Amino acid sequence: MNPIRDLVSIVGDAGLLTDEGAMAPYSRDWRGMFHGRPLAVASPRSTDEVAAIVRLCQQHGIAIVPAGGRTGLAGGATPDDSGNQLVLALDRMNAIRDVDALGETITLGAGCILATAQAAAAELGLMLPISLASEGSVQIGGAIATNAGGTNVLRYGMARARVLGLEVVLADGTVLNGLRALRKDNAGLDWKHWFVGSEGALGIITAAVLQLVPATPHASTALLGFASCDDALDGLRHLRARLGDSITGFELMARAAVDRAAALLGTASPLPDQPWLVLAEARSALAAIEQEMPDACMALIEREIIADALLASSGAQAQALWRLRESLAEAEAHAGRSLKHDISVPIARLAAFVAEAEAMIGAGWPAVALNIFGHAGDGNLHYNVIYQDDADIIGLSAAVHDLVTGYDGSISAEHGIGQYRVEELSRLTDPAELALMAQIKRLFDPSGILNPGRVIPLASA
Amino acid sequence: MNPIRDLVSIVGDAGLLTDEGAMAPYSRDWRGMFHGRPLAVASPRSTDEVAAIVRLCQQHGIAIVPAGGRTGLAGGATPDDSGNQLVLALDRMNAIRDVDALGETITLGAGCILATAQAAAAELGLMLPISLASEGSVQIGGAIATNAGGTNVLRYGMARARVLGLEVVLADGTVLNGLRALRKDNAGLDWKHWFVGSEGALGIITAAVLQLVPATPHASTALLGFASCDDALDGLRHLRARLGDSITGFELMARAAVDRAAALLGTASPLPDQPWLVLAEARSALAAIEQEMPDACMALIEREIIADALLASSGAQAQALWRLRESLAEAEAHAGRSLKHDISVPIARLAAFVAEAEAMIGAGWPAVALNIFGHAGDGNLHYNVIYQDDADIIGLSAAVHDLVTGYDGSISAEHGIGQYRVEELSRLTDPAELALMAQIKRLFDPSGILNPGRVIPLASA
Repeated sequence: MNPIRDLVSIVGDAGLLTDEGAMAPYSRDWRGMFHGRPLAVASPRSTDEVAAIVRLCQQHGIAIVPAGGRTGLAGGATPDDSGNQLVLALDRMNAIRDVDALGETITLGAGCILATAQAAAAELGLMLPISLASEGSVQIGGAIATNAGGTNVLRYGMARARVLGLEVVLADGTVLNGLRALRKDNAGLDWKHWFVGSEGALGIITAAVLQLVPATPHASTALLGFASCDDALDGLRHLRARLGDSITGFELMARAAVDRAAALLGTASPLPDQPWLVLAEARSALAAIEQEMPDACMALIEREIIADALLASSGAQAQALWRLRESLAEAEAHAGRSLKHDISVPIARLAAFVAEAEAMIGAGWPAVALNIFGHAGDGNLHYNVIYQDDADIIGLSAAVHDLVTGYDGSISAEHGIGQYRVEELSRLTDPAELALMAQIKRLFDPSGILNPGRVIPLASA
Repeated sequence: MNPIRDLVSIVGDAGLLTDEGAMAPYSRDWRGMFHGRPLAVASPRSTDEVAAIVRLCQQHGIAIVPAGGRTGLAGGATPDDSGNQLVLALDRMNAIRDVDALGETITLGAGCILATAQAAAAELGLMLPISLASEGSVQIGGAIATNAGGTNVLRYGMARARVLGLEVVLADGTVLNGLRALRKDNAGLDWKHWFVGSEGALGIITAAVLQLVPATPHASTALLGFASCDDALDGLRHLRARLGDSITGFELMARAAVDRAAALLGTASPLPDQPWLVLAEARSALAAIEQEMPDACMALIEREIIADALLASSGAQAQALWRLRESLAEAEAHAGRSLKHDISVPIARLAAFVAEAEAMIGAGWPAVALNIFGHAGDGNLHYNVIYQDDADIIGLSAAVHDLVTGYDGSISAEHGIGQYRVEELSRLTDPAELALMAQIKRLFDPSGILNPGRVIPLASA
């Protein structure tokens, strides 16, 4: 009984890595926070091969860690160091199976890269509105399994909102074929939603039908300066009242975070007198947005809600503003070690949370620096802390998460739980909810071979 | 051991009906298709009372049929005739608990009427975009439990897309409090989606947080005439390519259906030379839509994609067009008995389905008349059949559903399964999917007291 030989017989020689060097990229996450040692890395070519691998692993009691583009921030796709977990890489299941311009759908293998799918949609004059900094590496299956967020959520929702149909391999090798391209389907329990955001713990997503949207060729981008976080949220409300959900992005950035990014890019830090900046973008099929967005911003400047603004007058200027936004995480990495929090609170309580958290950290953890940015239009902040020494952050994350919980917020707005936050989830979630999650896990995966210890605390599963 | 006495002690005298006359409205559905005999009708005032009722029913083995506004079309809220099923009416749990203009959320008891919630949203300059002909009676809990559709789905999705948080009472009386007002929350399995569309078979929804959207004060409405169903779909594609998802409604109506409605209203039937009509509506926060929509329609008339059109030049004209659309179902009722099919197919295959279904019915069921209308932008047709005699429709529904299944469609696009379509669901659904639904049902409701026989076939549950 040699599972490696059996795996080769399923995926072929080219589909199995067992050499430590070759497996290295699958043995750690891209940030270097999580390290493991896989039994092997199997790359199936088809749904049937995935099912065969699952059945084999079930026989041998081998745990499976599904891996997509491995761009996650929670260690969900990194095996443990037991040497007994098989990484199941969807890389070779990357086909675009179908695109439908009238139905506005695209059908994809789980391994298809997000940017590839976006390009296929764009060729039809349509858009796949999942926008992530890592979209050149993210795979569709991973984006669905983690219910990915990003900068388009305000207008288009999370990855879940795009999913019309799924194909899933269950823990016993059963294939659920739900690759339906229907906008409306209330025929029985809609099981596809059980797998979105389940991080591979309930089944392995092998293909999906996604709903596309019409392109929005007209855009207007502005960098807005605000005297306070409260003002920024007031600006959001006024812009949405006037422009509706043409407001597709409302990215809040604290002064210090912008300064770090500008230094990294070697540019002057924009609107230097303003403590809070927002990269706001409006998009529409209607050309009128190109005039209405600047008009709306000017009106808010006159009313002193917006303190100062840079209105992009060209695509190049807009791109430069987005480059600043997209450099925030890299600039943070250059500033020291960083402790990331991916939190959300009700939008109306965001400013109060920011004030209380800053006071709390200033009093209790004086050696750290804050690097705050995020999708304020969604109530989601990357409330990150830069530090140099482990001793300076003892108890800090727990305190932030306690505060978030007190604000009826979430300790994982868009990054998921993975292995990184599974203990905090266990600590802060209502026992009745945890018990239900654990029951579902046991129902779908009674022998616990699917991404064990991720998402659902092992103790409760 | 008298469960009626115990029920009174929970909900009070005013909260329990046992008199046959008083229970009559809860004993049948509004179309008169389903009739039953409840043990009693209990109307709790609080989540705790719902939990107490569930625990009591669990002790006594009494089945619970949750009832909202009882506007459904599938008999999901009508008890059977055993006299042993308790109707649990959410009528008194109708509070608006909170509205949040900045967060764009509303928190409601399950019994709140949809129109009441819409009005509360409108007072904030926001919109609750679930639009149903029955919105003056529909309760929020029922809309969520059936994942209601309607005329706004093209732009805003089904009821599921509005649900940010849920409070649910489980079969053992456990209360899950997930009334979170977060746009983004990936902290563990997102259990609220297990209950949306579950028709009361997995738990009882007692309250919800819904996401509102900015109002769209600018609108343009047109009645478009097309030479064929294919042309109508071509028109949809062109309008969306130019106006994006400003297109909020695209309601297809067959000639005969429009003629029946016009006769009912006592008006001339519009665009009488066109076999297919579409009520198209575009809405936006941008005033430009009021010019762009007519311009786009004129361009399609010049290209002979639209054969003829009536462009509403006032709100009154737009309302008259909508009145026609909303009279289709009533006109159908006046024309004879009707056999309703609530089907969806991939939009690109809709015209082919319509042609094949018409040929099939013409050949096999010559005595019936078709009354076709629906949300073509969603691929959803109310493919209804008017008949006078039961003998004329033997086997017709099964044949329509077989055809739909062959087109990779759904036999229930928006009405749900209830008791009406549970056998067809059982007949036409993949056994692996049915088995999974049944396992979930057993996990959530091991003794089978929650709306038994609805949604999930009893045999598999």
